[in-house]
Amino acid sequence: MASRNNLFRAAATIACGALLMSAAMPARAQLDGELLAQARQLFQPLPASMAGSDSRPSPALLELGRDLFFDPRLSVDGTTSCARCHLPQLYGTDGLAKSHGNHDKLNGRNAPTVLNAALQLSAHWIGDRADVEDQATRSTTGPASMGNPDTAAVVARLKAVPGYAALFRQAFPGEAESIAVANAGKAIGAYERTLVTPSRFDAYLEGKDEALTPKQKSGLRKFIATGCATCHSGVGIGGSAYRKFGLYGDYWTATGSRDIDKGRVEFTKDAADTYVFRVASLRNVAMTAPYFHDGSVASLPEAVRIMARLQLDKTPSAADIEDIVAFLGSLTGSLPESFAVAPVLPPGEFAMPK
Amino acid sequence: MASRNNLFRAAATIACGALLMSAAMPARAQLDGELLAQARQLFQPLPASMAGSDSRPSPALLELGRDLFFDPRLSVDGTTSCARCHLPQLYGTDGLAKSHGNHDKLNGRNAPTVLNAALQLSAHWIGDRADVEDQATRSTTGPASMGNPDTAAVVARLKAVPGYAALFRQAFPGEAESIAVANAGKAIGAYERTLVTPSRFDAYLEGKDEALTPKQKSGLRKFIATGCATCHSGVGIGGSAYRKFGLYGDYWTATGSRDIDKGRVEFTKDAADTYVFRVASLRNVAMTAPYFHDGSVASLPEAVRIMARLQLDKTPSAADIEDIVAFLGSLTGSLPESFAVAPVLPPGEFAMPK
Repeated sequence: MASRNNLFRAAATIACGALLMSAAMPARAQLDGELLAQARQLFQPLPASMAGSDSRPSPALLELGRDLFFDPRLSVDGTTSCARCHLPQLYGTDGLAKSHGNHDKLNGRNAPTVLNAALQLSAHWIGDRADVEDQATRSTTGPASMGNPDTAAVVARLKAVPGYAALFRQAFPGEAESIAVANAGKAIGAYERTLVTPSRFDAYLEGKDEALTPKQKSGLRKFIATGCATCHSGVGIGGSAYRKFGLYGDYWTATGSRDIDKGRVEFTKDAADTYVFRVASLRNVAMTAPYFHDGSVASLPEAVRIMARLQLDKTPSAADIEDIVAFLGSLTGSLPESFAVAPVLPPGEFAMPK
Repeated sequence: MASRNNLFRAAATIACGALLMSAAMPARAQLDGELLAQARQLFQPLPASMAGSDSRPSPALLELGRDLFFDPRLSVDGTTSCARCHLPQLYGTDGLAKSHGNHDKLNGRNAPTVLNAALQLSAHWIGDRADVEDQATRSTTGPASMGNPDTAAVVARLKAVPGYAALFRQAFPGEAESIAVANAGKAIGAYERTLVTPSRFDAYLEGKDEALTPKQKSGLRKFIATGCATCHSGVGIGGSAYRKFGLYGDYWTATGSRDIDKGRVEFTKDAADTYVFRVASLRNVAMTAPYFHDGSVASLPEAVRIMARLQLDKTPSAADIEDIVAFLGSLTGSLPESFAVAPVLPPGEFAMPK
């Protein structure tokens, strides 16, 4: 009898364990299903391209834009292409706190990645550029970027590279004076609109549950529960609104920023925009240190901790931050081939003035 | 009879024409054959790689070298990687007369292309670097290049990018302190030794007669006949000797150089080396304007004209120069994939000091 009792107990234990498992598995699946449903309400997967007004750019326009993006000869001293601050090897950033332009002039703010940049509601940290075309166009004469004194100087530089004549003609057929700064900006913008980097998180949003690891799912849960997705939402996981940096304290006390940047008020002149910046897109954030408008924070876990404290008055545990950082890693996509591979630029009979 | 005579004459004419043709064709073929034989005495095709002492570099060594080559975070202000002066899009040059390094410091001379650079008997215009490894190593602390105060500062920068620890360990297995500047130089050098760009001229030297156009063959004939190949010979079409620039006149009167650079004497302290420079390799020369040690000449035809006058006391016609430039175009190869495609650098918890 003792042995039969033992057997019975053993069988009961097994049955019970099986019961627990069968109860647990649907529960987890249900939780996972709820997480995906919640994520789909907050975020959208990347489109194949981020076409603007010209929704079907010609190959010639894109080729011209790519060449111009990588050509330092457009700048006043020949040192600064778009790619100087948006290097492929650093995921479309330069790894610097603040970017250096022509004659080593320091830009006022950190260079955000050019990848997926066209998704954002505007360009630059304070939204003082309407879109990627506006940003590219005005960079050619920006004092701390390419530094040309005027658009005529840019055109002169473009004409000093003989090969650009045909490239502009093909990209803007029928225009009598196709070599123009506005056209250069259009071409660069059209190219930038192709720089999308779908990631594992996009596969997840499209229903591939296993695209995220359990740790990343836990991070996604915590990202939502902590309140990060209040601002970092949508297709860019950010990039679609302006917000004050430092709702629960002065940002510079947390970041250790050397200078106090007043943000968007500089552009709008509206006092309500003091310390307001565009919410950063978090796509590829694990590859684009240092962080914030002034690159004042080098570590992603530290940046997450600061954001939780300053924006949400929360103090997530180290384990919570680790999970959230794991989730952010799922936002890293592959470099688009047209960005990773350098174009061969038309050779110039080109030298800086003696 | 008349008709027979006519027939005979016609037949004779045809036979004669055929004779003339059969005489002409072997004559041209003979000339072409002689040109190829002559070319093979003067020039050699590119090897598959330019391996140095380490003739079988590991994939890990090459990967590390490629990452380091493209990483600006090695420099004192984070602006200057090897690739800053050796951009893929400009065929391993920067398109500048003289290169800019950290804090916009001006280098003393033009940055030659890194493509096929390891073929040359030394590095730099005056041969003050033994080889590509020496050049890379010393650039990390070069005042006008990466500008680190000492090798310890370079190591600190390498250690600030966590991902480099594993990459150095894999490239230098068994070394207790693998993150070292000498190892960085070895890795970058090993990578540079893979940057070979075989061109149509190599196919020609290997016996593919039709690889050169008739115009390029004419240019090759004139290149040899004018005397260019006296110095521009071998596998690099140059790069294997030092010569005085300006045998028939002061070079600066021809080039319009702003400053008079005394050349190799600066390194050797031997007065015989005054105005002596390393003969430039002409591989990819059509893609690497501006020309000469100080980038003082922007146009390739003009550079050819100046060289003929200053070095050979010749004044080739415009047509001769056009043909020679056509031949030089046959020295343009394709960019190696490992150079055209940017590597994805290990992300850093990295910010410049505040």
